Amino acid sequence: MDKKTVHDLLSKVFTAKGSSNIAFSKYWGKKDEDLILPFNSSISMTLDNKDVYTITSVLFSEVIKSDVFVLNGELQNLEDKDTKERFKIVDIMRKMAKTNKKALIVSKNSFPTAAGLASSASGVSTLVYACNIALGLKLSTKEMSIIARQGSGSSCRSIVGGIAKWNKGGSKKDGSDSYVEQIIDENYWPELMDIIAIVDPGKKKVSSRAGMKQTVETSPLYKIRPKYVEESITPQLVHAIKSRDFDTIGKLIMKESNDLHAVMLDTYPPIFYLNDISREIIYAIHELNQRKGKIIGAYTFDAGPNAHIITLQENKSKIINMLKHIDGVKDIMSVKIGSGPVLLNTQKSLITKNNILKFLK
Amino acid sequence: MDKKTVHDLLSKVFTAKGSSNIAFSKYWGKKDEDLILPFNSSISMTLDNKDVYTITSVLFSEVIKSDVFVLNGELQNLEDKDTKERFKIVDIMRKMAKTNKKALIVSKNSFPTAAGLASSASGVSTLVYACNIALGLKLSTKEMSIIARQGSGSSCRSIVGGIAKWNKGGSKKDGSDSYVEQIIDENYWPELMDIIAIVDPGKKKVSSRAGMKQTVETSPLYKIRPKYVEESITPQLVHAIKSRDFDTIGKLIMKESNDLHAVMLDTYPPIFYLNDISREIIYAIHELNQRKGKIIGAYTFDAGPNAHIITLQENKSKIINMLKHIDGVKDIMSVKIGSGPVLLNTQKSLITKNNILKFLK
Repeated sequence: MDKKTVHDLLSKVFTAKGSSNIAFSKYWGKKDEDLILPFNSSISMTLDNKDVYTITSVLFSEVIKSDVFVLNGELQNLEDKDTKERFKIVDIMRKMAKTNKKALIVSKNSFPTAAGLASSASGVSTLVYACNIALGLKLSTKEMSIIARQGSGSSCRSIVGGIAKWNKGGSKKDGSDSYVEQIIDENYWPELMDIIAIVDPGKKKVSSRAGMKQTVETSPLYKIRPKYVEESITPQLVHAIKSRDFDTIGKLIMKESNDLHAVMLDTYPPIFYLNDISREIIYAIHELNQRKGKIIGAYTFDAGPNAHIITLQENKSKIINMLKHIDGVKDIMSVKIGSGPVLLNTQKSLITKNNILKFLK
Repeated sequence: MDKKTVHDLLSKVFTAKGSSNIAFSKYWGKKDEDLILPFNSSISMTLDNKDVYTITSVLFSEVIKSDVFVLNGELQNLEDKDTKERFKIVDIMRKMAKTNKKALIVSKNSFPTAAGLASSASGVSTLVYACNIALGLKLSTKEMSIIARQGSGSSCRSIVGGIAKWNKGGSKKDGSDSYVEQIIDENYWPELMDIIAIVDPGKKKVSSRAGMKQTVETSPLYKIRPKYVEESITPQLVHAIKSRDFDTIGKLIMKESNDLHAVMLDTYPPIFYLNDISREIIYAIHELNQRKGKIIGAYTFDAGPNAHIITLQENKSKIINMLKHIDGVKDIMSVKIGSGPVLLNTQKSLITKNNILKFLK
């Protein structure tokens, strides 16, 4: 490849940075496996991309002979599940842009070891954001969320910052009514944060993709969960978030998390993500809230034993002190409410002259 | 007290022996706190009274000035919750017998330490059985079960041997349609047994009385549990028990136990009885069954972390071997299917000349 070609290619690279999110009410179970349409709407807080982020550089060009995906410095096999998920997205966007250009995608995740945060949410949302610019699509956040959703369900909520609601949709056959709306932006209530207590997982966990399918198929109690989340949790959460009513938010978050892990346990065979340490944290949070006479921290658990304590800046030290006294909590990290994906300048690009020469032969 | 009076009193003593039961589908939640009417029917196996038993001697006499209850050698305070529960029963039966005679009740439980078995089920059913004879009431097992139920709900199932079904009733205001029926007697399928894995409880547990009330009041998922147990679990269990179809029984027992602990977790604040060791046992049972290609053991958990593995005699050693390899299992005991309460001869009486003189002043 000559110098001019490389120079031309470099000028077409776009780099974005995005983050994961922590759900206040969760997505568990889909009624359409391909379009990824959930049984209930869900709400999440986008995490600040300072500590938890994906950086993704994309390059589309006719010079590229076949798609290439490099993650954390390693060339990925196009047949891998996660890589296929990424190119499902890229294909949708290429179709929209009416182009067949192949892509070089170089991505890097900065996720603290064992934090158990959804790196796919961060990865897919950042990829959609970067491709939107690189392909000149000029999509709205709503349109981007619809695309991200089809890669990895909960990733769609990371397309916007602050607190986002992923509408379940379900009236439109193509899934175009299952998109994300921002409830508040990250400046509306900047004191909101997630304190993550990292806990040893012990036994290997069931993937959430497989787990939610089993729950839908086998749990008798799941039959009423989507309606409960949709009708009792979601509208109250939206209202409480807009009103900055932490007491109500906290109670709803904890109830919803328990409800989720209840239907997991009601799955056959049962799925356990919580362990004895998770349970100790749950007890300790209830005790702390009771002692304070109001809810100052609310636990929520994804598909793993790590506790996410949603709290406000003013209570950060109280929560951390409490967590430090629990045996089995291996690490504690705090992440603020954050923005949606952003474009980075070319100096931050992961596609350099060297890796163009290395990966595009 | 003169010699003749003591001799007269001793001739009026009746002594019975009964046992606890392990539920295959469980009682959790009542729609009437006083009559103890459950939201769903439940099914249990009465345990053999060789290892797990209550012996109760009762004496009614006008010579006795006030009621006395001695449990495991200790005089009980009549104001204690458990003692009140016992005399609620005695009062019902005295009323039926149209007598005001006071009672001396001397009782002994033989429950292995920390086995977490319901000693109240054993205690109340044995008491009802003994009083029935002592008061000359000649009640049927159905009538006795209605009385026992009002003392301690699940105790009514121990009034009969083998496998019993406690009908939820609910049509009759006085609770007279909430009684126990025997599904099979203890000789129909004598190979049935319960292998109990005793596990360190760790955190102090919530009482089932308080816990079930909280679940009914706060769990959104509980709304459909009674209907699920009533319509999907109970009739299938009854049919499978009569057909000696262990595979179906085992699957139903495990699903029902998981469903119960799911609604406990869905309670606010959540109730946890299962711990990491319980979970390891659950995993191990599913693995063992999968390896064998059929269900040879089925776990079920009451309001505690101890696993009850329902199995057949022929698989006893396989289950025990498996349990022995799980860290945290402190003790293992096997109990066969057993009979209902029986009358013991006077030599086994717990009311002796000495304790008449000691407790009846």
